[in-house]
Amino acid sequence: MSHLEEETIGSKTIFQGKVVHLVVDDVRLPNGKTAKREIVKHPGAVAIIAVTENNKVLLVRQYRKPLDKIIFEIPAGKLEKNENPDDSALRELEEETGYRCEKLEHLVSFYTSPGFSDELLHVYYTDTLIKGSQHLDPDEFLEVAEAGLDEALQMIQDRRIYDSKTVYAVQYLQMLALRKQLENE
Amino acid sequence: MSHLEEETIGSKTIFQGKVVHLVVDDVRLPNGKTAKREIVKHPGAVAIIAVTENNKVLLVRQYRKPLDKIIFEIPAGKLEKNENPDDSALRELEEETGYRCEKLEHLVSFYTSPGFSDELLHVYYTDTLIKGSQHLDPDEFLEVAEAGLDEALQMIQDRRIYDSKTVYAVQYLQMLALRKQLENE
Repeated sequence: MSHLEEETIGSKTIFQGKVVHLVVDDVRLPNGKTAKREIVKHPGAVAIIAVTENNKVLLVRQYRKPLDKIIFEIPAGKLEKNENPDDSALRELEEETGYRCEKLEHLVSFYTSPGFSDELLHVYYTDTLIKGSQHLDPDEFLEVAEAGLDEALQMIQDRRIYDSKTVYAVQYLQMLALRKQLENE
Repeated sequence: MSHLEEETIGSKTIFQGKVVHLVVDDVRLPNGKTAKREIVKHPGAVAIIAVTENNKVLLVRQYRKPLDKIIFEIPAGKLEKNENPDDSALRELEEETGYRCEKLEHLVSFYTSPGFSDELLHVYYTDTLIKGSQHLDPDEFLEVAEAGLDEALQMIQDRRIYDSKTVYAVQYLQMLALRKQLENE
């Protein structure tokens, strides 16, 4: 065991919900003392940076209860049980936006809040969209929108775009635009 | 009320921990039906993209119990009660890395997991580091490291960098490098 690791000496499940489970572990610290760790277990999720033929990014406008705010996010959703992230990304893209795609590239996967949760988010990119049909979950209410890069940057300033995956996505598009500029010089 | 919003009709606190609180709300959906929303309340946090005079980014190597993994992250930490994010960023930078700084720029703030948590992360940038002294919390065990841009990109590939704020930070540095290249052409 590394000198940084913590040893689990006890574990208690506090709550098992539809989205998250809450577990509190007792751990032995590297210095021999004990501490409690609060852990929010999550099935993992996918998000898709989807660019239209007019070079706009697809967004969904959605009310988020934890924030009590309506914000614009890239399409995303939780993994279903035993679902492969690639399949999940294709499914969520079509369910939420009504678009399918020809090619979907996995960009990166990251833990959203490693201090207290194991939620792992898989991020994808596509610019090969094809019209399909939207079919939302019964308790899902959202509107599809589009934004060009300048508009999306403004939306970050205005806090209409306000979450990590979408801020990451806009920065990714900013980087693609800079690369294109460099190629053309 | 917008046609996307949900009305709270009940709320139950399940758990009040040191880091998170768990609340389950009953809501009325836009279609009149009811649903439960699981909400992880968090005090908010800060993270600092800190670049040394040798153009390397400061990282902390740390065990994360929720992941059961040791990963490299940019310095970060929770807001203390009534603490201003700017003050928190200066405090966390010095506590974790032993560096102070002359100028600290707020880049962006984002919700890390808007689907189930209200954790808001404030991200800062500095390249004006001054040696101070590290002083960790009693139950905090971490090692300070540095990485150049190419190395940091490799660390994302190797999943040694594996969390949203640090992946965002590396992409930010990638963007700065591209801008510099454009200026020099």
